[in-house]
Amino acid sequence: MSKKEKYAVGVDLGGTNIKLGIVSQSGKIIKKTSVETKAEGGPKAVITQMKKGIKEILSKNNKEITGIGIGAAGVVTVKKGIVENPPNIPGWRKVKLGEIIEKEFKINVHVENDANAAAIGEMIFGNGKNLHSFVMVTLGTGVGGGIIMNRKLFRGEFGAAGEVGHITIEYNGPKCNCGSFGCVEAFIGNSYLINMVKKTLPEHPNSLIWKIIADDLEKLTPITIQEAMEQGDEYAVSIVNDMGLHLGSALASVSNLLDISTFIIGGGVAGFGEPLFNAIGKAIKARVLTPLRKRVKVLPAKLKNNAGIKGASALVFYKSDKV
Amino acid sequence: MSKKEKYAVGVDLGGTNIKLGIVSQSGKIIKKTSVETKAEGGPKAVITQMKKGIKEILSKNNKEITGIGIGAAGVVTVKKGIVENPPNIPGWRKVKLGEIIEKEFKINVHVENDANAAAIGEMIFGNGKNLHSFVMVTLGTGVGGGIIMNRKLFRGEFGAAGEVGHITIEYNGPKCNCGSFGCVEAFIGNSYLINMVKKTLPEHPNSLIWKIIADDLEKLTPITIQEAMEQGDEYAVSIVNDMGLHLGSALASVSNLLDISTFIIGGGVAGFGEPLFNAIGKAIKARVLTPLRKRVKVLPAKLKNNAGIKGASALVFYKSDKV
Repeated sequence: MSKKEKYAVGVDLGGTNIKLGIVSQSGKIIKKTSVETKAEGGPKAVITQMKKGIKEILSKNNKEITGIGIGAAGVVTVKKGIVENPPNIPGWRKVKLGEIIEKEFKINVHVENDANAAAIGEMIFGNGKNLHSFVMVTLGTGVGGGIIMNRKLFRGEFGAAGEVGHITIEYNGPKCNCGSFGCVEAFIGNSYLINMVKKTLPEHPNSLIWKIIADDLEKLTPITIQEAMEQGDEYAVSIVNDMGLHLGSALASVSNLLDISTFIIGGGVAGFGEPLFNAIGKAIKARVLTPLRKRVKVLPAKLKNNAGIKGASALVFYKSDKV
Repeated sequence: MSKKEKYAVGVDLGGTNIKLGIVSQSGKIIKKTSVETKAEGGPKAVITQMKKGIKEILSKNNKEITGIGIGAAGVVTVKKGIVENPPNIPGWRKVKLGEIIEKEFKINVHVENDANAAAIGEMIFGNGKNLHSFVMVTLGTGVGGGIIMNRKLFRGEFGAAGEVGHITIEYNGPKCNCGSFGCVEAFIGNSYLINMVKKTLPEHPNSLIWKIIADDLEKLTPITIQEAMEQGDEYAVSIVNDMGLHLGSALASVSNLLDISTFIIGGGVAGFGEPLFNAIGKAIKARVLTPLRKRVKVLPAKLKNNAGIKGASALVFYKSDKV
């Protein structure tokens, strides 16, 4: 390995664990660690844990570290590295996370919303490497997003842009945790999806899902639905097709608004794989304005394991011109 | 008037008329004319008419003309001044309008989608003068839009960005002319709105609207609904409130995606005035993500008469860095 290669520390601030890694400019993780988040202890405890993790990962390090990148849920004001109201850390309102970590380690720190970090990760290391513009969508408990326009992150006025999950697809639809109704997240976010299937599964007594969950609805997860789908279960297939329609409807709105027609889909639920991607693409193409139709592309994320760490480290290599 | 003031020709390419004006840098129209579009004659006839109009407006002109701005419906590729598929001119596919006019008059020509031109018009001459970022929405037969981010027009990959009207608010909703379902335009675009009221008015036999249209449903227009609303008619008020909810639902999606929270609303239907603006603002605030809520602002367009001419001329003063 050339001595000249640059390295960054990537920090993935999750609700349960803080995952950390030293990542090379070419996207290889050369060291990895993890500490508990201790979210229940509030911001102070979380920051103490993060410092501990960074110290650990930097101990005995002999590489040139260009900076530290942190991906965090919640609204991030990039200018000051402030993280506001991350949904997975109770009691955290506004914390100048960037400043605090920069002071401690005397090294450049870049903080971003985790979905934006995922977008930059795909742009620097992943399937966005050769794309000018794309929208990243992360599927999981929530539905996140990040907009890359001309190889720059589109942040909006205060850094909160890209909330694909809170695009309405049915204005009188199911209540969303955000307070609105019919957001796409309220259809396909993990917990919403599982709740919906719990309610409707009894109407499908012959579905393979019953067998897979041993008749125990509490065992229902996206993975059990995926298994049934892979075995050709009609109801499971219809769930995945509906997910595609729901997400595709939101992404057609995105495409019409932004004139960006390439989407990279990552996160856990993306495990539904090609059947889901096909359904999403089909829905977007059926709904988007004619001149955009032929350009629509739906790609899987390339960063899978450690996407959080890699995305966070990519913030450093992206050299985010702090807005 | 100072000799140093700069002037531009603004050309508003409509389906029936081409309106032209010489506009000063401060937004005053000092000369105005109009020629028939002759859309039925196809692109050739339309271009001949446009040249005729420009010649007329430039005859006996003694002002320094910085450039010609053209606002046209349809997708506009700004780089080459190409106008694609304007919905109001049949038989027009792809025309290098910018090049043709530039060649004829040996003067800089800037072509833009009419809604984008309206956005730039508000930014240069109107209520966007002091705003960094806002989304322009034009209400009429269609629902158009233009995105201003950091005082630049956001064009997307190919110049088609800003199609606010084709944001889905009900993915299984009414069929839209664009081919999709439940676009906000399919709820509040003039003809959709009028059709909806035609269908539901019989359920409201006491509505003042009946009196205003002398029991003739063919006389129903947005203006007759507006009149009834101004007289306090309950059904007319509910129509305007529903419009606010529909547009507000789409704009909350826009705000969540772009992190832009200021909207300028123009076009004919904006004549519903404050009741409509209030209903839009209320719906956006009820639906947008918490951190954005307090920033939401809904403003009327300042350019009313001749907005098309002024917006087109503003393209010149904006010195559109041709993408």
